[in-house]
Amino acid sequence: MSTNVLRTPDGWWAVRGERAVRIETKAVTTAELIADRDAVRQAAASDDSGTPVAGLVALPPVTTPCRVVAQMVNYRSHAKDSGFTGDIPPTFFRKASGSVSGPHEPIVRPAHVRFLDYEVELGLVMGAPLPVGTVVEEQDLPRYVAGLVLTNDVSARDVQLTKTQFYESKSYPTFTPTGPYLALLEPEDFARLIDLRLRLSVNGVPRQDRTLADMIVRPAQALTLLARFQTLDPGDLLLTGTPGGTALKAPPRPVEKIAALLPPALKWKAFFNGQAKNPLYLQNGDLVTATIATPDGRIDLGEQRTAVADAT
Amino acid sequence: MSTNVLRTPDGWWAVRGERAVRIETKAVTTAELIADRDAVRQAAASDDSGTPVAGLVALPPVTTPCRVVAQMVNYRSHAKDSGFTGDIPPTFFRKASGSVSGPHEPIVRPAHVRFLDYEVELGLVMGAPLPVGTVVEEQDLPRYVAGLVLTNDVSARDVQLTKTQFYESKSYPTFTPTGPYLALLEPEDFARLIDLRLRLSVNGVPRQDRTLADMIVRPAQALTLLARFQTLDPGDLLLTGTPGGTALKAPPRPVEKIAALLPPALKWKAFFNGQAKNPLYLQNGDLVTATIATPDGRIDLGEQRTAVADAT
Repeated sequence: MSTNVLRTPDGWWAVRGERAVRIETKAVTTAELIADRDAVRQAAASDDSGTPVAGLVALPPVTTPCRVVAQMVNYRSHAKDSGFTGDIPPTFFRKASGSVSGPHEPIVRPAHVRFLDYEVELGLVMGAPLPVGTVVEEQDLPRYVAGLVLTNDVSARDVQLTKTQFYESKSYPTFTPTGPYLALLEPEDFARLIDLRLRLSVNGVPRQDRTLADMIVRPAQALTLLARFQTLDPGDLLLTGTPGGTALKAPPRPVEKIAALLPPALKWKAFFNGQAKNPLYLQNGDLVTATIATPDGRIDLGEQRTAVADAT
Repeated sequence: MSTNVLRTPDGWWAVRGERAVRIETKAVTTAELIADRDAVRQAAASDDSGTPVAGLVALPPVTTPCRVVAQMVNYRSHAKDSGFTGDIPPTFFRKASGSVSGPHEPIVRPAHVRFLDYEVELGLVMGAPLPVGTVVEEQDLPRYVAGLVLTNDVSARDVQLTKTQFYESKSYPTFTPTGPYLALLEPEDFARLIDLRLRLSVNGVPRQDRTLADMIVRPAQALTLLARFQTLDPGDLLLTGTPGGTALKAPPRPVEKIAALLPPALKWKAFFNGQAKNPLYLQNGDLVTATIATPDGRIDLGEQRTAVADAT
């Protein structure tokens, strides 16, 4: 059964229900914590009654700098939202790890960003080096992936679409809220990944709600494809894509075909004029809540609660 | 005046003409070498006659892992080649630093890549931390940039165009030949950047040849724009874009407009059928040579000679 780990300014904690037991470890980075698995098991099994989780300040359980790689369009429902038809080539992009923020820190909208969007995503935290050329079979996954985290791949849509490369639009500070828990998995937990349900609400209104059954390229295949060109190391983070329900929806196909005939500047002007009437983008003061868990709660990455704030 | 530094399996060397003098330093990483500038100056000024440069095996003077960030479409001549009209939003993308290879190592074409292209680029090597929010004025550049390197931003065009995100297509191992020299600059050298001339030939036939006068977003402005979202640290590398002359040229505008009406799979099939007749892409056995220097040789990043080899 998986063990939920929490990081605070004081160190690392094993979570059992509403209580957290301090992990006796010298680990500072997530990679070091993963290497000290015995200390985690000891805390999880101890008869120390611990301290209330509610009284702890959760930092992101993934320490930075680390590599943050993300999969583009990796849920069928999101592909539909994004106007994709036919085969989608599996694609990766990078996020700056400086974008990683805590599970209860505000998401800060830079002043030049107009269209701020959310993307709940399952994050895989690496537990072993993945050299270029590695082929990861389904049954090898426990050897490479140490655990899971809940992430929000916050996206500045006006920056993303006009620049075409996703890197900047998803890399501003606070654009990757991560946590609260790092769920360290046992080998038998991996069979449950498919049951994980991702949910995200804005001001209590559900926006995204899918299980991994909707995912296109699954973790083992994703790592194999990534290892064609990219090495990963323990503590690195792979975001596995978001399901449908983001604020951004592709324009209907005929409109898109006509827009393709316009010069880019005119095309985007028309598109963003339309988006200005879309009420679903995140606004100053909004509250984003997100969860990822199996229905039976055997894997439960906790609840992320992040307010949206304009840069001051 | 700038000092050229060479890295070999044995350590670091200051280059004076045809001879190299060992730098007495414990530096292993490029960041450590940059921090030990006194040792570099001492070697450059010593009366040791040194050893012939020709007898040394040059490693890339930028050690990895480090951040490798690149600017998209940043020369007017390349924008024209790429079919851009009007304003181009300044855009960054990431390359895996595992792609950095030596200045005389082969460029290895992965078996699945059909259209392999070259891009000679000036690389800036950071000398100080660049926190998010930094504004870099022209006169501040010497404070942040320690030196320059010659790089080739090798690109798998079929991967790049079909996936839209540039990350994978430019990140395979050996896709960033770097060096031979790290030119450590003195503050007065920065005024000479504009005179740097980038040249690249394939089998002795010139393909790219421009000066930085053709550059769109210059280094100080590029660092300011990058610092909107990305921290850099000493030893990190920013590639500043390539001039015109790559194998890839955009199709004529009317063809592109018609292609935009096709489903993506058909559009790319038609495009790559056309590219198959383009003889400029790199082939097994080709020799790529590249230089970057001022006309008077005061800044001269040396010559890169890389053969192209199919993966075995």
